[in-house]
Amino acid sequence: MNDYDQIKVHLTSKSKEKPPFDKLQFGRNFTDHMFVMDYKEGLGWHDARIIPYQPLQLDPSAMVFHYGQSVFEGLKAYLNTDGDVLLFRPSENMKRLNRSNNRLCIPQIDEEFAVEALKRLIQIDHEWVPNGEGTSLYIRPFIISTEPFLGVAPSKAYQFYIIMSPVGAYYKEGINPVKIAVQSEFVRAVKGGTGNAKTGGNYAASLKAQESAEGLGYSQVLWLDGNEHKYIEEVGSMNVFFKIDGEIVTPELNGSILEGITRNSVIKLIKHWNLPLTERKVSIDEIFEAHKQGKLEEAFGTGTAAVISPIGEFFWQDEKIVLNDHKTGKIAKQLYETLTGIQKGTVPDPFGWSIPAYNTSKKATAVN
Amino acid sequence: MNDYDQIKVHLTSKSKEKPPFDKLQFGRNFTDHMFVMDYKEGLGWHDARIIPYQPLQLDPSAMVFHYGQSVFEGLKAYLNTDGDVLLFRPSENMKRLNRSNNRLCIPQIDEEFAVEALKRLIQIDHEWVPNGEGTSLYIRPFIISTEPFLGVAPSKAYQFYIIMSPVGAYYKEGINPVKIAVQSEFVRAVKGGTGNAKTGGNYAASLKAQESAEGLGYSQVLWLDGNEHKYIEEVGSMNVFFKIDGEIVTPELNGSILEGITRNSVIKLIKHWNLPLTERKVSIDEIFEAHKQGKLEEAFGTGTAAVISPIGEFFWQDEKIVLNDHKTGKIAKQLYETLTGIQKGTVPDPFGWSIPAYNTSKKATAVN
Repeated sequence: MNDYDQIKVHLTSKSKEKPPFDKLQFGRNFTDHMFVMDYKEGLGWHDARIIPYQPLQLDPSAMVFHYGQSVFEGLKAYLNTDGDVLLFRPSENMKRLNRSNNRLCIPQIDEEFAVEALKRLIQIDHEWVPNGEGTSLYIRPFIISTEPFLGVAPSKAYQFYIIMSPVGAYYKEGINPVKIAVQSEFVRAVKGGTGNAKTGGNYAASLKAQESAEGLGYSQVLWLDGNEHKYIEEVGSMNVFFKIDGEIVTPELNGSILEGITRNSVIKLIKHWNLPLTERKVSIDEIFEAHKQGKLEEAFGTGTAAVISPIGEFFWQDEKIVLNDHKTGKIAKQLYETLTGIQKGTVPDPFGWSIPAYNTSKKATAVN
Repeated sequence: MNDYDQIKVHLTSKSKEKPPFDKLQFGRNFTDHMFVMDYKEGLGWHDARIIPYQPLQLDPSAMVFHYGQSVFEGLKAYLNTDGDVLLFRPSENMKRLNRSNNRLCIPQIDEEFAVEALKRLIQIDHEWVPNGEGTSLYIRPFIISTEPFLGVAPSKAYQFYIIMSPVGAYYKEGINPVKIAVQSEFVRAVKGGTGNAKTGGNYAASLKAQESAEGLGYSQVLWLDGNEHKYIEEVGSMNVFFKIDGEIVTPELNGSILEGITRNSVIKLIKHWNLPLTERKVSIDEIFEAHKQGKLEEAFGTGTAAVISPIGEFFWQDEKIVLNDHKTGKIAKQLYETLTGIQKGTVPDPFGWSIPAYNTSKKATAVN
């Protein structure tokens, strides 16, 4: 059986004008089509379809507007030199979507079917995958609760969407170190909360701290744990790594840190390179102390949007430390080049992470 | 100047059929109209209007679906025997909406104008205010972020809505004690988070624990603090009070507890009655210990939906304690009768809490 057969397709009668691919912003332009699937209690997930990109129509009492029961994912597709569209570890995203679903009391999706649906959507909108340096097609699967009801309870109806946006380089000139303010007042998440789920509430909670960091001239926030305000959790909406005295360390997964797929890929690559790496608790004191002793060699964030984001400066309790003279460190650079190379199919992929979604040269036969 | 003049009104051409007012559920039926107002960066809040109740049309990338930037309020209107529609402390809801806005980086609204807009909406839909015992018109103001953008940042566009729902008694037979399971694994909120804001993410985070409590045969959850899992925060989506050895105690506001308007009204009433009341930290150990010593006289939740919800049983760490033989306590009963009496205008209102929104006998002149 071909899962494609279950997906009804209604193509747009008129393609939108594409933005110039050399001037792409992040998350502002969307492709011609989107994937939708409905859930209703008793009926399960049903009516999978690809339709023209269009506004959602929801009752004002739809639960997503009131009680935040929603989850999402983010991944990217790249065009390689053979005209293949490559997806990076898409099954991992669908697995994590289901873990988020579990925490938010949203029904599980069929992960394999979701990847197939995504491939079909890419096939239809393949002309929207940009091919310039640093560009990609950003993919946003998300699920929202749609039951029209004001009671606080899990919704009995949901919609699963996949929308796609051609995006430019996250940083205008390759990778540039960012300046980070350590957040001591606001908390992103705590053990027992929703920190390890990709749900809207975590991001809504982060905005106030982000605003305060920007007010200080810093572009992002480093989050400490919600209990002691002592241990490092994440940076902005990325996981974080440090190189201290030759060893690479990253905060261990503890229930409040997001299980980043880029984080996981970075750990696997570093181990593959036989470099020392430890997942453990890392306190902000330790980082500032290591810097004083001249042992803090690198710091960088990892995430789908920026892939690798080197950190050039930390600000905490009126103290500022500068890393590597605001230059990108060696490990960060090596990781960035390897990961983006694997994503675009230009360097060997020993882990089988890059999955061909569609070959654009097969257009004529594959769409029909 | 009359604020009403700023609100454009577009009446429905056909009223919906009303549900039988003696069989109302909670939050399932909505009135004929709704209030809407838009916000755009640079332009501020604008285009206030009352229009027929209808689906919202939003881009799939509208930020509310992804990053949970939303806030809401809940209040009730009652019909008194003179045909007046009464609102209970509506300004307090709009003040709290602005406090929630501040935490979620949503622009402030004009609180007075919002109350006026609500009164105008009630005037138009006054036939939807039910008059049976235990019934009321539940009012849901809410704000959602609408900018079509996938970046994590405060939205540059919002919509403020007010929708209204005729509702029945929260409990079928007046007030009945509920059974509560103490939650030790999941956390609702932590200091520095969003616990004291009425935002969707808090409610989304609560669903899993609610589900687990129901699995044990308990109808609601008692939340402990996110740090030590020791101090009592809230019960379900209500504040909580205890009577221990003659003294009424309630957890003090600490940044993670919602500042309930019913909580505030209950505190004012108890002080007005010259009964001893303390706002302080209350540990779950203390409650179970007080019960062992025969000193735990009452427990009850407070909130807009149920007004007062007596608690008949707590379950924590395999131990069960029963209060008052599952009967409603004296203070809970007195508070329920006084508060609902003030809300319906049948008992004196020494605080001026009940605000006339509209007199239904003035219908013909007031609508035009």
